[in-house]
Amino acid sequence: MARPDAVGTPGEIRCVAIVGLGLIGGSVARDLAARGVRVLGHDRDSLTVDAALAEGVIAAGLGDDLAGMEDADVLLLAVPVTAAAEVLVRARPWLRSVRLVTDAGSTKRGILAAAERAEIGGRFVGAHPLAGDHRAGWAASRAGLFAGARVYLCPSAHASAEARGLARRLWTMLGSEVMEMGAAEHDERLAWTSHLPHLASTALAGALAERGIARADLGPGGRDVTRLAASSPEMWTAIARENADAILPALDALAAHLHTLRDAISRGDADAIRTAMAAGNAWSDGG
Amino acid sequence: MARPDAVGTPGEIRCVAIVGLGLIGGSVARDLAARGVRVLGHDRDSLTVDAALAEGVIAAGLGDDLAGMEDADVLLLAVPVTAAAEVLVRARPWLRSVRLVTDAGSTKRGILAAAERAEIGGRFVGAHPLAGDHRAGWAASRAGLFAGARVYLCPSAHASAEARGLARRLWTMLGSEVMEMGAAEHDERLAWTSHLPHLASTALAGALAERGIARADLGPGGRDVTRLAASSPEMWTAIARENADAILPALDALAAHLHTLRDAISRGDADAIRTAMAAGNAWSDGG
Repeated sequence: MARPDAVGTPGEIRCVAIVGLGLIGGSVARDLAARGVRVLGHDRDSLTVDAALAEGVIAAGLGDDLAGMEDADVLLLAVPVTAAAEVLVRARPWLRSVRLVTDAGSTKRGILAAAERAEIGGRFVGAHPLAGDHRAGWAASRAGLFAGARVYLCPSAHASAEARGLARRLWTMLGSEVMEMGAAEHDERLAWTSHLPHLASTALAGALAERGIARADLGPGGRDVTRLAASSPEMWTAIARENADAILPALDALAAHLHTLRDAISRGDADAIRTAMAAGNAWSDGG
Repeated sequence: MARPDAVGTPGEIRCVAIVGLGLIGGSVARDLAARGVRVLGHDRDSLTVDAALAEGVIAAGLGDDLAGMEDADVLLLAVPVTAAAEVLVRARPWLRSVRLVTDAGSTKRGILAAAERAEIGGRFVGAHPLAGDHRAGWAASRAGLFAGARVYLCPSAHASAEARGLARRLWTMLGSEVMEMGAAEHDERLAWTSHLPHLASTALAGALAERGIARADLGPGGRDVTRLAASSPEMWTAIARENADAILPALDALAAHLHTLRDAISRGDADAIRTAMAAGNAWSDGG
């Protein structure tokens, strides 16, 4: 369906459908609504939808079959990465007016392949805002979450110029700094910059829990290192599965560096310990 | 030498000598000076001493042989743990009025043994404030650093009641919450609550550095996990050497938890990944 305003103002975003009103989806909804965009929302938790309606953030809820987004310019999937493909299939019948389908997942190869399978590659530009934290859910969502945050955009191989332009417009509207890259490059990079830190934090928390150490026993530094362990197990299990091939070499590199430290400490080798410490210190100074 | 006021007001702290005016020593000096205590200071960096004098934080500098503390009630060693024993020997001739010798190091067995060797065990109560961060030096020192912070006190086996009382008074004056425990128990506990998080952060930074990932490429979560890697290599090399026997089992536990995660991810075993993630999540909720 050609919409009356679509020809004269390509790239305008007047109505956005968001599936998943958690930390990311809920925060996008808040920022868009505040900018006058009509937001349609769905969440598997109907209380979340009720709250978003009551707060005036979403104008209407979508059905469980995702009917109701017929006028949307943009569909944003803000659900765990392993759930996104299924949501895409469910949304497929209702995309007639949608010129951009995007997501907010931490891995990108899987969802791009799913978009191809659903034959919406021309309208699909994956997105990954580096703006989450360990909190989750509508209650954690807030205005301004994306201001100054980096957002990676991974267009489908044959995404239209309009879809790419809309993806840039959507995220820059929210104050983000967008950076386009291929899905494989994205997933490989994020295995190191995001997934590995999460797994390190989780493993550390697991070791402390097993030892009977409480979080309250830590100093401020230890609390920093373990903060990510509080992240949603469901979301991070999905990420770890999706990106396993890129994550495993990163985990091995961390294990090797831990082993080097262990070896130096067990030998009482001050020079070797200092070399390892200085490498981390120099890296920290670098940015 | 009996000081005129020592009999009538046991526990009063009128003059404190501090060796090492870095983050910890400098911050103690600021808080004590603000409370009207006369502070004498030494630092191996003479520019630091000049700055502390110019800011009116210390009333006088000590000589490199530590002469000049003859009127001090308290001597605080705020130098890296492997340097503290040597400083204690250097300070030994000047301790006639000192009723408490204390420190601020992250390990306690070594310095307590050094205090025994120097025959000042009766006046020695080790201290470890959980208030440091990754910054170091006089420039990082600040007022109020210890407000609300936990401080572990580890008295020498035959520390006098006066020394123990003075140690409590010193740190509670600064707003800390003190907790007394034995040195061996302290070192074992800190291997888990502090040294292991530092080593995890350092190993992660080393792996990222080797991979060519910049700190600026990380999201807020990754920056949390790697923050401690910016800590002083000198200080942490000393800690790792001092507490090696307690640290090694903690490192092994972390390696085992990482291996469990790696194994679950390599098998694509969602239940096993989720179990590991949920353990970290539950621990985080616990305090």
